[in-house]
Amino acid sequence: MKELLSHIRDVPDFPRPGIVFKDITPLLGNARALQRAVDAMTEPFANDGVTVVAGVEARGFLFAAPIALKLGCGVALLRKPGKLPFHTHRVEYELEYGKDAIEIHQDAVTRSDRVLLVDDVIATGGTIRAAAELVSGQGAKVIGLTFLIELGFLSGRSRLEGYRVHSVLAF
Amino acid sequence: MKELLSHIRDVPDFPRPGIVFKDITPLLGNARALQRAVDAMTEPFANDGVTVVAGVEARGFLFAAPIALKLGCGVALLRKPGKLPFHTHRVEYELEYGKDAIEIHQDAVTRSDRVLLVDDVIATGGTIRAAAELVSGQGAKVIGLTFLIELGFLSGRSRLEGYRVHSVLAF
Repeated sequence: MKELLSHIRDVPDFPRPGIVFKDITPLLGNARALQRAVDAMTEPFANDGVTVVAGVEARGFLFAAPIALKLGCGVALLRKPGKLPFHTHRVEYELEYGKDAIEIHQDAVTRSDRVLLVDDVIATGGTIRAAAELVSGQGAKVIGLTFLIELGFLSGRSRLEGYRVHSVLAF
Repeated sequence: MKELLSHIRDVPDFPRPGIVFKDITPLLGNARALQRAVDAMTEPFANDGVTVVAGVEARGFLFAAPIALKLGCGVALLRKPGKLPFHTHRVEYELEYGKDAIEIHQDAVTRSDRVLLVDDVIATGGTIRAAAELVSGQGAKVIGLTFLIELGFLSGRSRLEGYRVHSVLAF
């Protein structure tokens, strides 16, 4: 995965002073790296009978769609409140300061679905835990959660106990 | 394309009263329809030497990534202001009321690139015209613009004269 690492760019002081942002756009811009990232995010779940790939807005969509096509599944969207047009379920979650929420269409997953959740980065894990709760709350089975990047120092994995968590690159 | 049409859902009064929103989530949720949509959006540009696929946030990302992988290209991101972490160029454009803007990383495309622009829907064409200006402004060649859905009654195509515009489903 060393080759993939070379396509991740550190951007200091984004989105706030003191934070070093892991910019994945150089990886996205390189066809071979993008394909390898998609393959590596998918591989551990290739034989798990996944029926839906659920992607977290917005960068998660960039991986969710190719992973879904690779697994022969459809995509479900996990979005910020007010973005999804049909009837939704919502879960709120705590941020460092204040609250946020994430929504899914009520018909996006069903009781018979086996769902792989996808995002580009796992940081504190708050968003993806809420996403997993949304999917489970509709009766579907969460097969696993897959990320390109894991920011290990933020301990997101500790908020996802009981779930199968996979990341391709860890910092 | 009749089969694809059956996966588009009309949602009345979204995002505002009086507007009938074309909801593509049923299509995204169906593996076969998603693959057919990606194929149909890509096909006219398969032999045009595209080197970068530029996707418009957020739903455009869902198509841009699979189209890029199909063409053996990388993806460039076109995003709302403040979302891209690195140095950006920005173009402002007029809305019905007020203004909006779209950004691209300064290193996302170069003078030697041949760029296919991707979004899910073309409505009035304001966003995608600004996106095409951004890409051209960096010296790259805009090979074409491809959409899943064209809302013909909003005449977006008339704002894209001189560009090759392709849509899979027209309303």
